Amino acid sequence: MIRIYFAAPTWSEYEPWLPAALTAAGIRAEILLEAPDPALIDYIVYAPSGPLADFRPFTRAKAVLSLWAGVEKIVSNQSLTQPLCRMVDPGLSESMVEYVTGHVLRHHLGMDRHIVNPGRIWDPTPPPLARQRPVAMLGLGELGLACARALQALNFPVQGWSRSAKAIDGLETFHGRDGLREVLSAAQIVVTLLPRTPETENILNAESLAWLPAGAVVINPGRGPLIDDGALLAALDAGRVGHATLDVFRTEPLPQDHPFQAHPGVTITPHVAADTRAPTASTVIAENIRRSEAGEPLLYLVDRARGY
Amino acid sequence: MIRIYFAAPTWSEYEPWLPAALTAAGIRAEILLEAPDPALIDYIVYAPSGPLADFRPFTRAKAVLSLWAGVEKIVSNQSLTQPLCRMVDPGLSESMVEYVTGHVLRHHLGMDRHIVNPGRIWDPTPPPLARQRPVAMLGLGELGLACARALQALNFPVQGWSRSAKAIDGLETFHGRDGLREVLSAAQIVVTLLPRTPETENILNAESLAWLPAGAVVINPGRGPLIDDGALLAALDAGRVGHATLDVFRTEPLPQDHPFQAHPGVTITPHVAADTRAPTASTVIAENIRRSEAGEPLLYLVDRARGY
Repeated sequence: MIRIYFAAPTWSEYEPWLPAALTAAGIRAEILLEAPDPALIDYIVYAPSGPLADFRPFTRAKAVLSLWAGVEKIVSNQSLTQPLCRMVDPGLSESMVEYVTGHVLRHHLGMDRHIVNPGRIWDPTPPPLARQRPVAMLGLGELGLACARALQALNFPVQGWSRSAKAIDGLETFHGRDGLREVLSAAQIVVTLLPRTPETENILNAESLAWLPAGAVVINPGRGPLIDDGALLAALDAGRVGHATLDVFRTEPLPQDHPFQAHPGVTITPHVAADTRAPTASTVIAENIRRSEAGEPLLYLVDRARGY
Repeated sequence: MIRIYFAAPTWSEYEPWLPAALTAAGIRAEILLEAPDPALIDYIVYAPSGPLADFRPFTRAKAVLSLWAGVEKIVSNQSLTQPLCRMVDPGLSESMVEYVTGHVLRHHLGMDRHIVNPGRIWDPTPPPLARQRPVAMLGLGELGLACARALQALNFPVQGWSRSAKAIDGLETFHGRDGLREVLSAAQIVVTLLPRTPETENILNAESLAWLPAGAVVINPGRGPLIDDGALLAALDAGRVGHATLDVFRTEPLPQDHPFQAHPGVTITPHVAADTRAPTASTVIAENIRRSEAGEPLLYLVDRARGY
C-alpha cells in the first residue's frame, strides 16, 4: 500500500478525481491529508499554497509532485532533495492556448474598437490577414510551444525565443540576447510564456521594449515579474507598445491603485489564462506514481539547476 | 487571344495581380474595362456593384466569374444563361476563420468584462474549457466548414447544420428543421454562415431562437437577412440570447438609429469578417479560365436551382 500525502489546500477539488485516477493506473494507495509521521510517506502531492515547507522529514518520499506548472516557489527550497515534478496538465495547456489564441486574435482583428464604439463609427477597412501579422513567442516550454502551434495553424508567422538554443520542427527559433533583439524587432504581437527565473526577471524592460516596432502589443499570461512594470508604462505612454494585456502581476489581486488599473492601454485579466484542472491533473499525478513504481522515468522532472 | 471583360468597380485593386495571374496560368488574354461589342467577350469577371445587369448580349461568353462569394444578387437574373462561378478565395476563407475563431474565443473567455471593467473587479473564476462549450455552425460550405475545422482544432465540440444532408468526415452534421432544432438546443454559441436564399432568410427567427439555451451567443458573419432583427432584439431582451455579434445587416452601413446600435447586448462589426483579396482571388479567376479553355470542370460552379 502506497502512502500519498496530499499537501495542497484543494482536496475538495481532487477528491472526486484522484482516487479514481490512481485506481485506473493500477495503483493501490492511501491518500493522507496530514502527515504526522513523515517517514511513512511515499509520495507528496504539493502546492505552494499548502502547509509544507520542510521536506527533510520525508526520508522515504520518492517524489514531490507539484500541482502547479510554475515551481519558482519551491525550486530553491534547500530542504528539498527528492525529485520534483512540475504539473503539465492537458487542461492547463488547453486553457492557455485558448487564452493566448483569443487575445492574439482580439488584437489582430482590432476587436476593442467594435466592442466599445460610442460614436457608432462604421469603418469597413479590413484587418490584414494573420499571415501578415508576425508574433513573437517568448518561452518554448510545453505551454509556449502549444500556443505557437495553435497560432501557426491560424497562419500567424510565429518566431520563438528561449534562453538556451532549441531546435523545433517547423518553428523558427532564436535564443540569447541577440536572438531576443531579432525576434522583438519583427514582432507586432509578443506573448511571454517564460518560466520565472533570475535570468527571465524583467526580460521585457526599457531596453528590450525599445526593440519593438511602434504600436506592438504585449500579452503576458506567464509570470508577473517577466515585465518591468514601470518600463512597460513608459513604453505605452510613448506609443512604443500599443496595448498590453496582462494576466499575471507581481502582486495579485492587482492593487486598486496600481497604475495599470487606470491605464487605457492596459487590459487586466485576473489570472485566468491557465489553471490546473483536477480531472486531468489527477491522471498526470497517477501516471507519475505508476512510472516511479515501475522504475520508468518521471514525467516533467524539474532540472533544479535551470530552475524549471 | 482571349477577351476578358472586367465588369467590377475594383480594377485598381486587381490591376497589379490579375494580368500576372493569367500569365502564370499560361493564358494570353486582353482585359477590357468596357465592352462596346459584347459579342466579342469570352469571359466576364463580375461583381454586383459593377455596371452589368443584362447578360444577353454576351453571346460568346463561356463563363461569368464572380469576385464575390455570395451570388444572391445575380443568381435569379433571368438574362444570365452562361455558367456562373462563385469566388472561393483562400484569403477570404482565412479572414473568415480569423474573425469567427476570434469572436468565438472572445465570448468563450468572457473577454468583454475584462476589456471594460470600470469597477476594477478581480474575479479569478476561470472559464470552462473549449471542450465544454458546444458550438453550432449553420452553413457547411467552404467558409462554414473551414471555421468548423478551426474551432474543432481548439477542442470546441462543433455540430454542423445545412439545409440538405451532408456527410463530412469528423464532423457531426444535421439538416432540415428537426436537425436545426437539435443543433440549436445544444449550442452555447451559434455561428451563421449560410448562403442567402429564400429558404435561409430569417432562419434565426422567434421560433428558432427560442430553441437556444438561455444566454447563448449568436455570431453572424454570413448575411444580414439570415436573422429576423426584431426577433433577435426580443430574444436579447428576454435573456434567451446573451449577446449577438453581427458583421452583416439588411442595410449597410447599419443606420445610426437602428435598435442594434444602442443595444448593450449587440456588438456591431462593419462588414469586415471576410473580404475578397485581389492577389489570391486573381489566381482563382485565372485557374477557372485555364480550366474552361482546357475543357476541365469549372471550380465553384453555382447550381442555379439551389441558388448557390
